[in-house]
Amino acid sequence: MAATGMQPGDNDQRYDLFSPTTMPLAAAFLWNKQLMVQLNCRGYATAQFMQPEPAKYAHAPALEAKTFMQPEQPYYAHHPGRFVYIKDEQNAKLFSVPYEPVRSKADKFVFSAGKSDICWHLQQQGLQLEWRLCLSPDQPHELWQLTVTNLGAQPRELSIYPYFPVGYMSWMNQSAKFEPALNAIVCSSVTPYQKYPDYFKNKQLKDKTFLLAEQVPTSWQCAQQAFEGEGGLHAPDALQQTELDSGDALYETPACVLQYRLQLAGSAQQVYRFVFGPALDEDEIAAARQRYFLTPDGFTKAQQQYSAYIAQGQGCIKIETPDAALDNFVNHWLPRQVYYHGDVNRLTTDPQTRNYLQDNMGMSYVRPEAFRTALLTALSQQHSSGEMPDGILLHPDAELKYINQVPHTDQCVWLPVCLSAYLAETNDTALLQQEIAFGDSAVQASVFEHICRAMSWLLHKRDARGLSFIEQGDWCDPMNMVGYRGRGVSGWLSLAAAYALNCWADICQHCGDTARAEQYRSDAHSVNQAVNHYLWDGKWYGRGITDDNVVFGVSKDDEGRIYLNPQSWAMLSGAANNEQQQLMLAEIDAQLATPYGVQMLAPAYTAMREDVGRVTQKHPGSAENGSVYNHAAAFYLYALYQINQPDKAFQILRQMLPGSTEQDCLQRGQLPVFMPNYYRGAYRQFPRTAGRSSQLFNTGTVHWVYRALIEGLFGVKGCADGLLLKPQLPTDWPQVKLTRQFRGAEFSIVMRRQAGIKTAQLWVDGQLQPAALIKNIVRGRQYQVELLLP
Amino acid sequence: MAATGMQPGDNDQRYDLFSPTTMPLAAAFLWNKQLMVQLNCRGYATAQFMQPEPAKYAHAPALEAKTFMQPEQPYYAHHPGRFVYIKDEQNAKLFSVPYEPVRSKADKFVFSAGKSDICWHLQQQGLQLEWRLCLSPDQPHELWQLTVTNLGAQPRELSIYPYFPVGYMSWMNQSAKFEPALNAIVCSSVTPYQKYPDYFKNKQLKDKTFLLAEQVPTSWQCAQQAFEGEGGLHAPDALQQTELDSGDALYETPACVLQYRLQLAGSAQQVYRFVFGPALDEDEIAAARQRYFLTPDGFTKAQQQYSAYIAQGQGCIKIETPDAALDNFVNHWLPRQVYYHGDVNRLTTDPQTRNYLQDNMGMSYVRPEAFRTALLTALSQQHSSGEMPDGILLHPDAELKYINQVPHTDQCVWLPVCLSAYLAETNDTALLQQEIAFGDSAVQASVFEHICRAMSWLLHKRDARGLSFIEQGDWCDPMNMVGYRGRGVSGWLSLAAAYALNCWADICQHCGDTARAEQYRSDAHSVNQAVNHYLWDGKWYGRGITDDNVVFGVSKDDEGRIYLNPQSWAMLSGAANNEQQQLMLAEIDAQLATPYGVQMLAPAYTAMREDVGRVTQKHPGSAENGSVYNHAAAFYLYALYQINQPDKAFQILRQMLPGSTEQDCLQRGQLPVFMPNYYRGAYRQFPRTAGRSSQLFNTGTVHWVYRALIEGLFGVKGCADGLLLKPQLPTDWPQVKLTRQFRGAEFSIVMRRQAGIKTAQLWVDGQLQPAALIKNIVRGRQYQVELLLP
Repeated sequence: MAATGMQPGDNDQRYDLFSPTTMPLAAAFLWNKQLMVQLNCRGYATAQFMQPEPAKYAHAPALEAKTFMQPEQPYYAHHPGRFVYIKDEQNAKLFSVPYEPVRSKADKFVFSAGKSDICWHLQQQGLQLEWRLCLSPDQPHELWQLTVTNLGAQPRELSIYPYFPVGYMSWMNQSAKFEPALNAIVCSSVTPYQKYPDYFKNKQLKDKTFLLAEQVPTSWQCAQQAFEGEGGLHAPDALQQTELDSGDALYETPACVLQYRLQLAGSAQQVYRFVFGPALDEDEIAAARQRYFLTPDGFTKAQQQYSAYIAQGQGCIKIETPDAALDNFVNHWLPRQVYYHGDVNRLTTDPQTRNYLQDNMGMSYVRPEAFRTALLTALSQQHSSGEMPDGILLHPDAELKYINQVPHTDQCVWLPVCLSAYLAETNDTALLQQEIAFGDSAVQASVFEHICRAMSWLLHKRDARGLSFIEQGDWCDPMNMVGYRGRGVSGWLSLAAAYALNCWADICQHCGDTARAEQYRSDAHSVNQAVNHYLWDGKWYGRGITDDNVVFGVSKDDEGRIYLNPQSWAMLSGAANNEQQQLMLAEIDAQLATPYGVQMLAPAYTAMREDVGRVTQKHPGSAENGSVYNHAAAFYLYALYQINQPDKAFQILRQMLPGSTEQDCLQRGQLPVFMPNYYRGAYRQFPRTAGRSSQLFNTGTVHWVYRALIEGLFGVKGCADGLLLKPQLPTDWPQVKLTRQFRGAEFSIVMRRQAGIKTAQLWVDGQLQPAALIKNIVRGRQYQVELLLP
Repeated sequence: MAATGMQPGDNDQRYDLFSPTTMPLAAAFLWNKQLMVQLNCRGYATAQFMQPEPAKYAHAPALEAKTFMQPEQPYYAHHPGRFVYIKDEQNAKLFSVPYEPVRSKADKFVFSAGKSDICWHLQQQGLQLEWRLCLSPDQPHELWQLTVTNLGAQPRELSIYPYFPVGYMSWMNQSAKFEPALNAIVCSSVTPYQKYPDYFKNKQLKDKTFLLAEQVPTSWQCAQQAFEGEGGLHAPDALQQTELDSGDALYETPACVLQYRLQLAGSAQQVYRFVFGPALDEDEIAAARQRYFLTPDGFTKAQQQYSAYIAQGQGCIKIETPDAALDNFVNHWLPRQVYYHGDVNRLTTDPQTRNYLQDNMGMSYVRPEAFRTALLTALSQQHSSGEMPDGILLHPDAELKYINQVPHTDQCVWLPVCLSAYLAETNDTALLQQEIAFGDSAVQASVFEHICRAMSWLLHKRDARGLSFIEQGDWCDPMNMVGYRGRGVSGWLSLAAAYALNCWADICQHCGDTARAEQYRSDAHSVNQAVNHYLWDGKWYGRGITDDNVVFGVSKDDEGRIYLNPQSWAMLSGAANNEQQQLMLAEIDAQLATPYGVQMLAPAYTAMREDVGRVTQKHPGSAENGSVYNHAAAFYLYALYQINQPDKAFQILRQMLPGSTEQDCLQRGQLPVFMPNYYRGAYRQFPRTAGRSSQLFNTGTVHWVYRALIEGLFGVKGCADGLLLKPQLPTDWPQVKLTRQFRGAEFSIVMRRQAGIKTAQLWVDGQLQPAALIKNIVRGRQYQVELLLP
């Protein structure tokens, strides 16, 4: 076992944690197109399914607010979870799998995150237990399997009690009973509403929650309180009885508890299987039973189909570097997280436009056609003015919710920025000629024309100084009061607009439209000049200028003195010259750098700043208010490669992952199976909590990290002619090997430093190439590539 | 101790429960104009304060929905509560006050509901503990006092830990720290919002929660998880330490925990005091500290002021009957509950119009001028068409919420019905001439004219059959789909309109307007005739006729076959003749009667009936779907007195109170310190849960019960000339004594049965009166009254 208490397992296919208490919030997640489940190492679960809006089928014990996923989800005894109590009938000793609710210490504990399953391996009281979750490939069904093995020679008398709390389903109606015909506990509810038109909408809601069992139980209990009694969840009263009361829940908080009496001979093994999820009616539950338990191998087949679904989320590189932890993450978990975002769009029906485009940008490296479809979907909702809406509606019943009801001004930026990654990967320039209508007009226009209008809109939405209006936010959603009165401008957005214009100019150039390319470059230059004129603060760029003409994010500010994004994007847009870059890098190191990555701003705001807005009210060091907000850190990472800072870039990359030291792991409290949206920042203000992971795996971070790996670190970026090789390896790396999937061909690449050479030498299938470019790529071919580096 | 495990205490001033487990949901409540706190016997609390809408300052551990108070509130380990852990430092033994979270059994346990305080008396481990809550008279502040007494001769070394969980305050920002300058733990949060105009609104919210202590603590902890650790709430890790870590909460779930090290000599006593509540800022907390702890006797004075506030809620009768439990409830708890409703209008800013009028009808017996003000307030929001709005706005920022956004058609009914009680009590006919504008017109009209318009509106809103349209509900809020297409009618509402017209006719008559009186009586008669024609089902009245012309609530229905309200109101309106009344009474007994009272309908619906609506989707036996819904039972009670059924009426009255047998108490699970809005019904369908109290003390029930006592049981009703004496005592009562406050005079009344007389004889101050009427009442006088009954 690693000193950190966690390590990869099963030939890097899994990641294992060996304690339920050292990193109590550490979690893993599974998803399909209907369902997302996050399980923490102690057995607590956060799950939602789509109908079409996200909904729950296991609830808190109190009436919950309908809300989006929360960072740093708080857990407590009655939090939803998936547990099994085990009672030794010979001595009445009780423990629980995986750890909660009894919390007794196992002889062996492994929480093991797989790609298409999550499982625990435990040894306790002479028993071995495996508790494994897989999902249905296509339904909102959790497939659970418990394997109990008698490790001793003596027979054992046991009771096995799966315990799935269901919580407070509804104040209108909630009940539960065991249905012998289904061999399931069925919990029923009515989603509360008050206006009659909602009745007709709600008829389609899956208001039932079921626990379907393969084997007939000895007894059951459907009411939480009747089960728990005075003993508490760590020692429920009902488990002191020989059998459960086989009771129902009648407008009482439901729970699904089954009992199995088990006589287990020495060394014998017993398997139990369950399906848990929401259902519209009992017919759906009967169909699930038929599929998983009454069809031979139905359960196993569904598991295999789910594994096959997840396996489709492979990235386009496999790496072998001096950094095994990086290899593990890049080869296994990073593309999986990209795939999650791009394939199911974070399980929302109205993704923010910028998230939707960036999430699908990442798909360029996993399944490029996904980006193509997404771009067309997004552009079909563009206004003919060129403006992009704040969210993209993915379902006929979807509507813009939460933050998507607040006007933000950055959405157009992401069109050329994300498209450029897709074009590099595919060279699919035909996409630009595809005709598509607008959201407010049936008149069709080419993708090219759509994006030109978006660029015009960006240029139009500037003030007399040439800076971009921010209205009620840009990329930073909650920066909502800089410009709500119509005058404030965003420094970051101005730079992002310049970068977008340059990206688009490159694409125009590539398509042979030199005139437009020049015009857009000239426009970008003007924007850059305006930013340099109004926002350069001497050592870094300010973040913006308020409605009252106050520049902020500058040296005179006590809080929010420096923001990361304007610096990163000034590197990307070309606004910052070399001298400015050096000054900025030094200030980022001095003010924003922490052992857990680079903060998005510093110092974190500790009080409302009314001319900046809601971002300043978030807890200092959390989310956009001065955390290590990885999405921003990823922009910085990408920018560092653009300005050829390989060692600094590599440091930023590595800080996005937990695990450099044991202390680092414990402080972050997260397994390196995903990058979280943030680690706590405010490092200088609140060191106790700095570094703590949000545990939230919804983040645009991963797409930019993947892009930075392709275009920066490993420098295996596509271009019109083929594959360019221009890595920026850390200076202390002698060699890397990688396999690159590209335009249907596979490239086995070795990059190594060669003493005595001045420039890189590229050898393809034994032939020295005139430049670091592989041309005339043939689909289906395998290439052996060697890149010698000075 | 009573066999029921509960009994009155302190000369009937309190009600005591002697176990935390026999009736685990049993609760008591306190309120002031800002705050309402419901505490259950185990220490769990549900509290809300007004800012101006109801808000919480101690939360669930999960993000809670913003909702109204729930019936049968579910409790669980981390539910908000007010606790004290006690540790014996000599043997490390731990228990908690009052019962949760440790749940160890005390040698003596008393949960004692007072009128202006709630307290526990415990003996455990050689200690005596008193834990008492009182409220501030005028602020949203809980005043807590702990008294620890060493019952032994040996000195004790203790640690005392008040533990006030604060829960998940906000996903935007939550934190907590101990402020030495305030000697308080201050928890801070930002109420989540997304649109900037809400920022300006939210600035006035009391987003801080504080626990202010009189004495300086030894140590403290502000973070829930750091306190609880792996031990769980029944054995928190932090309590194994010598001192708490004195830690803060930084975007972590806050809790208020203090430690006091205490050396207590034999027989010695120590008192600790705390104030808990919400605050806008630290200045407010400092002011609270100044008031309660830095001003001599400040805390005690506030307690006294609060007691004085509650003491204003006296009723107009004190009774002494053969039924001590009834005496206890009527003399102490019933007027208190009436006062709660009428004085603070259930702590809502937009009470439903029917609730507002009925709640203030009850105030006719407590503080009659409250009804006068309420009627004028309500009428000032009446439309000039005569229609009454669905809710009455009591605050400039209030808006109609929840069910008040759904159109109901019964609001006008309550004007004359409630007014008649006030006029009987006060004879304040001048009120009728008061001029007041309409909600949609500045033109003033007399109260008399307002109510005439309301009656016209009621008469106008009928179909060709002469039955009242129901639209999306009547008194039964969730009966929303009988008439949503515009054709359905309500049988109950038709009868209620007839009764209202008759009430108004009586008032017109009383004012000398005989012509109007006759017209209204004639109108009422027409309505009654229509109901008899279209809705009499042979043995009872149907509930209504749907949009599709289907009569429901009749013998052909499998569910919802009979409803109580149409029967009760047909007795009131005069629709039912004597033969019909007898048939109805028999069917009510056969179909609706239960040991816990009379159900509102039967059988309870077990599935949605789309032409009746949402009421049929509530859990069968809960709320309006076939529970013993006490508000409807109270109408029935009142109606029974109208038709001279004293014994049946008394039975209904007594069934509204728990306590007839031990089994009855345990099944209801409630202390008789309030009448709940319902006891579970569906008695024949779900006997396991039938009788269980909702524990919800918001209900129009109590006003009608008080009115039934005045006008029915004790028959001490006012009239233009004075006080009528016409009791309807149960036949087995030989005598009652009561004191009646009436129009400024006090009447000491003895009513007793006298053998050999044929009619009642009234003696006032020794003089036999010609009729059972006391005339020429002189304010300030005391009258000795004897009423001899046959």
